[in-house]
Amino acid sequence: MISDKMKGYVENSSAIRAMFEEGKRLAGIYGEENVYDFSLGNPNVAAPKEVNDAIVELVRGTDPVVLHGYMNNSGFESVRAAIADSLNRRFGTSFGERNIVMTVGAAGGLNVILKTLLNPGDEVIVFAPYFGEYRSYTSNYDGVLVEVSPDTATFQPNLTEFERKITPRTKAVIVNTPNNPTGVVYSEEVIRAMADIMEQKQRELGTDIYLISDEPYRELVYDGVQVPYLTKYYANTIVGYSYSKSLSLPGERIGYLVIPDDVADADMVIDAANVANRILGFVNAPSLQQLAVAKCLDAETDVSYYNRNRELLYQVLTELGFTCIKPQGAFYLFVKSPVEDEKQFCAKAKEYRLLLVPGSSFACPGYVRIAYCVSYETIERSIPSFEKLAYDYFHQV
Amino acid sequence: MISDKMKGYVENSSAIRAMFEEGKRLAGIYGEENVYDFSLGNPNVAAPKEVNDAIVELVRGTDPVVLHGYMNNSGFESVRAAIADSLNRRFGTSFGERNIVMTVGAAGGLNVILKTLLNPGDEVIVFAPYFGEYRSYTSNYDGVLVEVSPDTATFQPNLTEFERKITPRTKAVIVNTPNNPTGVVYSEEVIRAMADIMEQKQRELGTDIYLISDEPYRELVYDGVQVPYLTKYYANTIVGYSYSKSLSLPGERIGYLVIPDDVADADMVIDAANVANRILGFVNAPSLQQLAVAKCLDAETDVSYYNRNRELLYQVLTELGFTCIKPQGAFYLFVKSPVEDEKQFCAKAKEYRLLLVPGSSFACPGYVRIAYCVSYETIERSIPSFEKLAYDYFHQV
Repeated sequence: MISDKMKGYVENSSAIRAMFEEGKRLAGIYGEENVYDFSLGNPNVAAPKEVNDAIVELVRGTDPVVLHGYMNNSGFESVRAAIADSLNRRFGTSFGERNIVMTVGAAGGLNVILKTLLNPGDEVIVFAPYFGEYRSYTSNYDGVLVEVSPDTATFQPNLTEFERKITPRTKAVIVNTPNNPTGVVYSEEVIRAMADIMEQKQRELGTDIYLISDEPYRELVYDGVQVPYLTKYYANTIVGYSYSKSLSLPGERIGYLVIPDDVADADMVIDAANVANRILGFVNAPSLQQLAVAKCLDAETDVSYYNRNRELLYQVLTELGFTCIKPQGAFYLFVKSPVEDEKQFCAKAKEYRLLLVPGSSFACPGYVRIAYCVSYETIERSIPSFEKLAYDYFHQV
Repeated sequence: MISDKMKGYVENSSAIRAMFEEGKRLAGIYGEENVYDFSLGNPNVAAPKEVNDAIVELVRGTDPVVLHGYMNNSGFESVRAAIADSLNRRFGTSFGERNIVMTVGAAGGLNVILKTLLNPGDEVIVFAPYFGEYRSYTSNYDGVLVEVSPDTATFQPNLTEFERKITPRTKAVIVNTPNNPTGVVYSEEVIRAMADIMEQKQRELGTDIYLISDEPYRELVYDGVQVPYLTKYYANTIVGYSYSKSLSLPGERIGYLVIPDDVADADMVIDAANVANRILGFVNAPSLQQLAVAKCLDAETDVSYYNRNRELLYQVLTELGFTCIKPQGAFYLFVKSPVEDEKQFCAKAKEYRLLLVPGSSFACPGYVRIAYCVSYETIERSIPSFEKLAYDYFHQV
């Protein structure tokens, strides 16, 4: 028999699988091209050519014992140094190789840092709507997830409630900007205000509160918007990064943590993250991919592709009467459900072969997430379905 | 401040790091070729040519959105089917794709299955000497590690003590054959006796006791010895495999779990392992490496290379008066320390620039592990140092 904790997870997961199976069933009836699957955050832009070239070059030119071998649990020193240099050039930071821990994607990185920091009962604050996996990651280390309710006017963090929810047990705060599921980028003003609150609370409570910035979407921004680099605003900031979206390598599981020298007990946190990487069973980030991304630090994904999707879908949906913030980053639209129970709305959408994710999965009921990392043609073909859906809710008496 | 649990790990880890630093210091003084580092299980045989060829072929011939993309958390279905077929051909089993979960190496696989099975306080039995990380993996899920003391005559499991240590809280038993650190392969006779005990105890206690077979060394065997496939002896067996040693890919973190239909609550264990892979932050085994190993299921590592090392080192050490079981698998010799405190022996060995690992790290003090996955020349050059060491202990009055 499986563990009690896992039973709940498996039940939740069955619901997601049921949706996936339903999509396959629909594809079987109507043809795959007539099912509009907006439910997955799987980039459909190919990895930049540089990545595959780098892989071939490495395989052809590197001693296989090094290329595929063990290294320090934190990763190849050359790779970590190259990433530190790249960050310093782009953001005016001053990281060294010792501040970078290569991880099995951002999900691996978040698990490593939460394992490193959390005692049972420690609180981790998140801002709804948030990526639902934060709940599992926190629970893995017997932490307690504390939600700040959404500010649905702007989807910026609700700082008044945030301040109230910081307690002596608050060990970490997770932010995700550009945000999944809203696509919102937290403004510099909000970041400054958040940092002030946390500094003040640290002094008042005599505790260390770590800000964990989960940044898989950093590079996916539109209209020239700037994403503040959070270590520059709040000393106790740890960054989790992934190449899943920026280089379209989600299956390769490659990312890193930045643990700056400025964080509280930096030496110990750096040492412990190295050990956590090992004992959680990651051991190290995949070696070939470490070396490949280090050769592609200046490669860029084709953001214009996602932007074209964003513009079309945003225009179509708002013209049809749906309400939604125009996202500045990532590849999601977070649309207000025309009825309170957004699961009912998702069920109706499915009748028109539109697969959407209920906001409840992000602790924000009443909204749905539409992932537009699909082909432009999928969006074009889906328009009649959205029209019928809009007609059902807005034009029928 | 880091978590209390991690503080202990970091201290332990500092000891290992200190040894590593000492090795570097010695290399700085005497030259790298004059330091004989037998402390690491890092294969120095290159990955078979097929692996790199497969990687290049995949990169040149596969849609990058598939090659580097997300798939089911348990891995590509085609890869899992190919592995199941290969096992069925080799071992007369009858696994299907659903019985295989691709994992981030064997370490990832063990964490996935322990997360899947353990409630806090559940007991996991291991046979000393054992790979020290089992303690951390079990502790990650608040399990309790229960040690069976070593049978130093044969280094086969001590079954009398094993039987006594099975309790109503026993959830799992981990075996590792061929064994790290002894190189011993558990005999079929012992496996049968172990299975009988576990079947009997399951009936008596009304519980499910899972046998977890950690098999990274399965392919590294000498003298034509057979390694029994454990699912055929005990129904409740789950296998953890890794390509780290068999294809010399330790840095790539690629392996799998086998969860047969015969294990108790198989459907639930399979579903939960899929979810555990996701929520622990592995998400999935690295995609390119999954596809690469599936193309190399018949590739073989050069076992004769390790065998030459084994023969030389075993002959030299026994002729010098050291006592050691001749290993049938893996790439370790487990040598009896001439003095009770083997750490003192390791310190003395270091004076001759020999880096060995104390048996205490494997819960078996009084012995040292010598990893012979080094070059033949390293072994040849190290002989005078072993001679001096032997002289100190055996010939000096």
